[in-house]
Amino acid sequence: MFYHDNELQYEVEVEDPDPYFAKMLQQAIGGVEGEMRVALQYMFQAFGQPKEKQEYRNLLMETAAEELGHIEMLATAVTKNLEGAPEELRREARENDAVIDAMMQGGQPRQALSAGLHAMPVDANGNAFSGNFIVASGNLAADMYANIMAESTGRLLATRLYEMTDDPGMKDMLAYLIARDTMHQNQWHAALEEMGETVPVPASFDQEKENQEYNYEFMSTFREDREDPHERWTEGVSIDGKGEFSFGNQPGGGNPQLEKAIEEMYNEASGGSGDRTIEDE
Amino acid sequence: MFYHDNELQYEVEVEDPDPYFAKMLQQAIGGVEGEMRVALQYMFQAFGQPKEKQEYRNLLMETAAEELGHIEMLATAVTKNLEGAPEELRREARENDAVIDAMMQGGQPRQALSAGLHAMPVDANGNAFSGNFIVASGNLAADMYANIMAESTGRLLATRLYEMTDDPGMKDMLAYLIARDTMHQNQWHAALEEMGETVPVPASFDQEKENQEYNYEFMSTFREDREDPHERWTEGVSIDGKGEFSFGNQPGGGNPQLEKAIEEMYNEASGGSGDRTIEDE
Amino acid sequence: MFYHDNELQYEVEVEDPDPYFAKMLQQAIGGVEGEMRVALQYMFQAFGQPKEKQEYRNLLMETAAEELGHIEMLATAVTKNLEGAPEELRREARENDAVIDAMMQGGQPRQALSAGLHAMPVDANGNAFSGNFIVASGNLAADMYANIMAESTGRLLATRLYEMTDDPGMKDMLAYLIARDTMHQNQWHAALEEMGETVPVPASFDQEKENQEYNYEFMSTFREDREDPHERWTEGVSIDGKGEFSFGNQPGGGNPQLEKAIEEMYNEASGGSGDRTIEDE
Amino acid sequence: MFYHDNELQYEVEVEDPDPYFAKMLQQAIGGVEGEMRVALQYMFQAFGQPKEKQEYRNLLMETAAEELGHIEMLATAVTKNLEGAPEELRREARENDAVIDAMMQGGQPRQALSAGLHAMPVDANGNAFSGNFIVASGNLAADMYANIMAESTGRLLATRLYEMTDDPGMKDMLAYLIARDTMHQNQWHAALEEMGETVPVPASFDQEKENQEYNYEFMSTFREDREDPHERWTEGVSIDGKGEFSFGNQPGGGNPQLEKAIEEMYNEASGGSGDRTIEDE
Amino acid sequence: MFYHDNELQYEVEVEDPDPYFAKMLQQAIGGVEGEMRVALQYMFQAFGQPKEKQEYRNLLMETAAEELGHIEMLATAVTKNLEGAPEELRREARENDAVIDAMMQGGQPRQALSAGLHAMPVDANGNAFSGNFIVASGNLAADMYANIMAESTGRLLATRLYEMTDDPGMKDMLAYLIARDTMHQNQWHAALEEMGETVPVPASFDQEKENQEYNYEFMSTFREDREDPHERWTEGVSIDGKGEFSFGNQPGGGNPQLEKAIEEMYNEASGGSGDRTIEDE
Amino acid sequence: MFYHDNELQYEVEVEDPDPYFAKMLQQAIGGVEGEMRVALQYMFQAFGQPKEKQEYRNLLMETAAEELGHIEMLATAVTKNLEGAPEELRREARENDAVIDAMMQGGQPRQALSAGLHAMPVDANGNAFSGNFIVASGNLAADMYANIMAESTGRLLATRLYEMTDDPGMKDMLAYLIARDTMHQNQWHAALEEMGETVPVPASFDQEKENQEYNYEFMSTFREDREDPHERWTEGVSIDGKGEFSFGNQPGGGNPQLEKAIEEMYNEASGGSGDRTIEDE
Repeated sequence: MFYHDNELQYEVEVEDPDPYFAKMLQQAIGGVEGEMRVALQYMFQAFGQPKEKQEYRNLLMETAAEELGHIEMLATAVTKNLEGAPEELRREARENDAVIDAMMQGGQPRQALSAGLHAMPVDANGNAFSGNFIVASGNLAADMYANIMAESTGRLLATRLYEMTDDPGMKDMLAYLIARDTMHQNQWHAALEEMGETVPVPASFDQEKENQEYNYEFMSTFREDREDPHERWTEGVSIDGKGEFSFGNQPGGGNPQLEKAIEEMYNEASGGSGDRTIEDE
Repeated sequence: MFYHDNELQYEVEVEDPDPYFAKMLQQAIGGVEGEMRVALQYMFQAFGQPKEKQEYRNLLMETAAEELGHIEMLATAVTKNLEGAPEELRREARENDAVIDAMMQGGQPRQALSAGLHAMPVDANGNAFSGNFIVASGNLAADMYANIMAESTGRLLATRLYEMTDDPGMKDMLAYLIARDTMHQNQWHAALEEMGETVPVPASFDQEKENQEYNYEFMSTFREDREDPHERWTEGVSIDGKGEFSFGNQPGGGNPQLEKAIEEMYNEASGGSGDRTIEDE
Repeated sequence: MFYHDNELQYEVEVEDPDPYFAKMLQQAIGGVEGEMRVALQYMFQAFGQPKEKQEYRNLLMETAAEELGHIEMLATAVTKNLEGAPEELRREARENDAVIDAMMQGGQPRQALSAGLHAMPVDANGNAFSGNFIVASGNLAADMYANIMAESTGRLLATRLYEMTDDPGMKDMLAYLIARDTMHQNQWHAALEEMGETVPVPASFDQEKENQEYNYEFMSTFREDREDPHERWTEGVSIDGKGEFSFGNQPGGGNPQLEKAIEEMYNEASGGSGDRTIEDE
Repeated sequence: MFYHDNELQYEVEVEDPDPYFAKMLQQAIGGVEGEMRVALQYMFQAFGQPKEKQEYRNLLMETAAEELGHIEMLATAVTKNLEGAPEELRREARENDAVIDAMMQGGQPRQALSAGLHAMPVDANGNAFSGNFIVASGNLAADMYANIMAESTGRLLATRLYEMTDDPGMKDMLAYLIARDTMHQNQWHAALEEMGETVPVPASFDQEKENQEYNYEFMSTFREDREDPHERWTEGVSIDGKGEFSFGNQPGGGNPQLEKAIEEMYNEASGGSGDRTIEDE
Repeated sequence: MFYHDNELQYEVEVEDPDPYFAKMLQQAIGGVEGEMRVALQYMFQAFGQPKEKQEYRNLLMETAAEELGHIEMLATAVTKNLEGAPEELRREARENDAVIDAMMQGGQPRQALSAGLHAMPVDANGNAFSGNFIVASGNLAADMYANIMAESTGRLLATRLYEMTDDPGMKDMLAYLIARDTMHQNQWHAALEEMGETVPVPASFDQEKENQEYNYEFMSTFREDREDPHERWTEGVSIDGKGEFSFGNQPGGGNPQLEKAIEEMYNEASGGSGDRTIEDE
Repeated sequence: MFYHDNELQYEVEVEDPDPYFAKMLQQAIGGVEGEMRVALQYMFQAFGQPKEKQEYRNLLMETAAEELGHIEMLATAVTKNLEGAPEELRREARENDAVIDAMMQGGQPRQALSAGLHAMPVDANGNAFSGNFIVASGNLAADMYANIMAESTGRLLATRLYEMTDDPGMKDMLAYLIARDTMHQNQWHAALEEMGETVPVPASFDQEKENQEYNYEFMSTFREDREDPHERWTEGVSIDGKGEFSFGNQPGGGNPQLEKAIEEMYNEASGGSGDRTIEDE
């Protein structure tokens, strides 16, 4: 179960509020690369761990709770970019409708219209966070790759945001978040290392059941037959050490030769019948 | 640009049509682990490659076109599971409405209602394929991790489907698709190997800009202070070789201390004014 | 503005309640082929008509209000399929949890869980109705084709539903709805006839501005060069009477030759810099 | 910031695993009436509270963390309904594919296909949780009504689930969750009571700015003029005590009289020009 | 069933067209706080009323039809903000592409691209209206709270829009809509008053079945044990008058202790078997 | 199966990069009127063709592959509008953050944040492409109308984009795409012509089963009885030649008279029971 206290996980200061940056920060909250995704992803992965895997449940839940604190930090940053101007500036702004003007012309309109100048569970375009972003496959190796990917795109997003602001408070907060993404990428790689051989995922599937002719062939789909380009992925021992890369073409499996659907589907376009037997005669 | 011919990439035969399995196959077409996702993901990644990276553009596009052929195979498999019964069986079924009964009671209703007993661009629950499934971040290392993840969850899905059918045709098709996922996992790992040092992603961000205190610390969020569990991720050299793992707690950044929004947002719940200066006096 | 009265537009009776059919009927309410779509589509098309087109505004609004009545009919049909059993039957069912069992095993669970055995604004899979289904393009000819399409897939859905029930009340209701779709297809075709020449849509765009080499050529994308199949769409006068069909291949436009993005995007995967000028030297 | 420990908030036991019930429980996790919604809703409401409202921030955050624990309980319940059978039973089931059969025919297929027999952040139909479910308006009174609504539909869902299971463990867990919803409804009502006069929301908007003729009139849209039905909402003092209910009709505001759009929109359906001035002459 | 006439419900005039405001108005059409939501929500609630509740069916349907007229008004307002400039101004604007420039830089691009300068069934960010916004639970008290919430956030939105425009026509239209929201909040409260005791919702569930220990306890999730803050929600008689508020902590329910899934799910990450019995030995 | 080569289908040049136009182009990629929709729509329609309809499978697949090439062209155009500036200009822009400023204030933020200045599978508002846009009904005539509609709104979008740019490269690319839409509209009309009588769709449904009283009546829903306006759709032979248009009103089907739901749904709002038999006695 979960607990909280009244502090942020790390300081969030904004010297020079910027409604456009408040829009951009939404991507790190509710976007596919954002903190809601990782918090809930690690949580759902943890929820499913069997009792034999308590150390992985711990690993995942520790970080899930940390990520919840990142949502809080970013939501605070959004509010401070929209509200945190010194009194005089805010008063002026109000007279000139500067904040509202910015919201209307290029800001995230729903931060004003739907949330009263606060953060929302949406991305930079106002698209709602979706449970579809969350991967919790039941297989820990697959989940670790999903986590590395999430932290890779998350850190990439944070570095791009870092370049879009000159505000020292925002840069300090982002430098912290980027550092945490460095650690998280490393810890998920470490977990994979602990698991031993996991490629191809799922390693628990007996590989002899898979097709043995096409499991290490690079398949060219180029219109004209190409020569083997002699790349790392077309020759030599495969990365999992279980096969030899080769280079070839799509095998081809004949024309699909589908039957018509039953008549009651009314698939027949013109006035006749959709029943195959009728047409066949 | 793109071309096609009239053959499937690999044979698709169904001996014993099963409308329930037709529902499950949808996950491999339009689901988050499915073939529409990888086909379009590799395509969008390829579209963005600069001219200096032609070999990666080739690598991605070769496989994008292959995956399009997998969509075709699976769509064919859905139709054959819904329609492919021998004439006598189909006639009987029609009399007893067996297929339609199955569709109504536990099948995927829209395969009948919206598609006339064919495949759709949706998952096993009938949720539409979404562009949100696609990752094309601009950074090739992040993209490769996204691709490894996609092929890991994709192969996991295919192995689960493999266990849900006894039909030899379906098992043969899935054994082929599982083999291709083995290759694809290997080829994306090979591409990462070729790129050299990529962790933490993005490696092109100057790591000195990130917070140096918290970039290799495992952060415990346990309610009571825990002892260092001495795991691979709490001590020793980090996986990227650029730091030393440690074990600690969340730093804490004070109470957020937000200002009120401007009065025109009408955030004040009761009849008074939302203007901070008014309340303060 | 809008009005209502207490009557249904047409009788809705259910003799033999069927929770599975209640699930299927949802497709005709909130599905892409359903009545919410057409009601709101015609309404939004009407809302945008300029004062010179009052007769089209009328045409659209008359039918928009009719379609609202179809939603009401279908929602009533769902409730009657879930609730309308005679007292004794319902009591028995309750003891055996027959309705609830059906809902759990193959029915639409949210009709019970979220709506207390009533209709919802969702499709047969429980996917929510979406404003994305609505087409109101600003161009009346485009809108009429959207309307013909909507009524075509809507009537197709209704005929499929007609085959999935033996209940005389449901068959009577569907025979009415199918008849209305016949009329609506005809009336949108009639509107197109009144508009005169509309193909290619939009006809108000000066066709001389479009590329004159490829505007009537059927473009083959077959891998191997094909012979002209001499179909209606590869030779002869075009349907709009403004061109001559021909048969050819994709012209080809060279390799895209993209530049790298600016360095601050951190697109470079490995530790070097993403700045083109650096690599160029 | 947030913390966790290793215990569930309340016991979760399943005596008689039921894959159909595992499907239904998803509605209480990722559905619009579910625990992800309330956990995140209270969290986002808390994140936006200004420093003068620390007691409301506390109130909201205390309950947000509690609701996170409910997600964990329900996810555990799903897994136990899918996996928790005694060894012998599970072995038998495996031979007969009983669980997998149920998943395919009427269960939630993605609990198997995408999650390896675990819970997912989706509803009973497999629709993903959406940030759109979350209301955090910036106005505390509006938020409290959103919270009362969420707990009302949430408790309604839990009582319906309570009737769909005979498992004593599940009934005990649901009796606990229903009790918590009772408390939460009460506490949000208590918060409203503390705020004083809040109706009409937002009470901080100067009501003299609103139209004074139609702000307390019940507006009939019946096709034929109806008599005042003398209901609580058509006569007497209004509930907010600030007006007198009356009964009337829609005022009517004339035909909209829209201009045509600029020519460059190509709204004109036929070959002429969309330019009003051209047509006018 | 439904009817219409040619008049707007209330006048809609725009003196000074503003494409940015046209974007903001979309929130009141297709947004979660908008008129499509309430129109359809009241309609679906009405559709489900049993014959004993005709007065509630009437109440809901009267207002549903009124809200349809609000969609029409707002759609008209959008068009007039995009098109309604005096001829000379529009001609100038066209020369300078002023409207189109505004659309491209900060307007709602799809109002131009997809709708030819008209309203769409989307919110201010262009997110499509969703059936997920609609609550029709089957329980009238829950529905009334949903309606109060909808009208509270709807009126809040309208007051914010009111502050974002100086156009007298727009202010007059919004003053009317704000007044109607005042009435609707009052009428839904009045309906609740008529129903008698409804808290906790659903009041028809026998409260003795719920857990009696935790149904009126405020549950603190603070990391360190807090003292009872002596708030309205931690002591004294509960709002529903059926309990006594108290203050306590989360009870705790032990570690979840999950079993592994069956082997065929391939949840085991490394090459071994996922079968618990194998590991146990 | 599918193939590719290294060339674009047609040249894509940008002389004067424009980040606002890059936003607008997204509508033609991932929007409902865009190229992803048609490529996948034609593909899914082709996948379902029975072996007797090989010529239609060919027709559809030829164009599906062509449309894939249009996605590639447009994605290239987006990148070139974001990146393609001459070196000096790009360097300056970088110093002044001009591109990034444009992205933040009015561009499509995720083209920068999520894609490193590349195209995405989203529309101009950043809404993800959805499988819901795809129509493949099983009935070829319904599908052809869906295709005509798609090409009509697609060409309309392209003409509007054509007016929003002065860049000669972009105008040339759009002139090509507009030409292709002209051809595609014509070829789908040609296919309909080949099929013979298809109205009303589906023509294979025995029209005698539909209600014979209301299948050719224009149904007025005007509040006051209107006179027949003597339009093409109210009198004369129907367009399908199978009926005679007439003018009338909604028939009316009585009050719905719904029963209450079973007690276990807890639909009753107040403390009594929801069981009809209890209230009845």
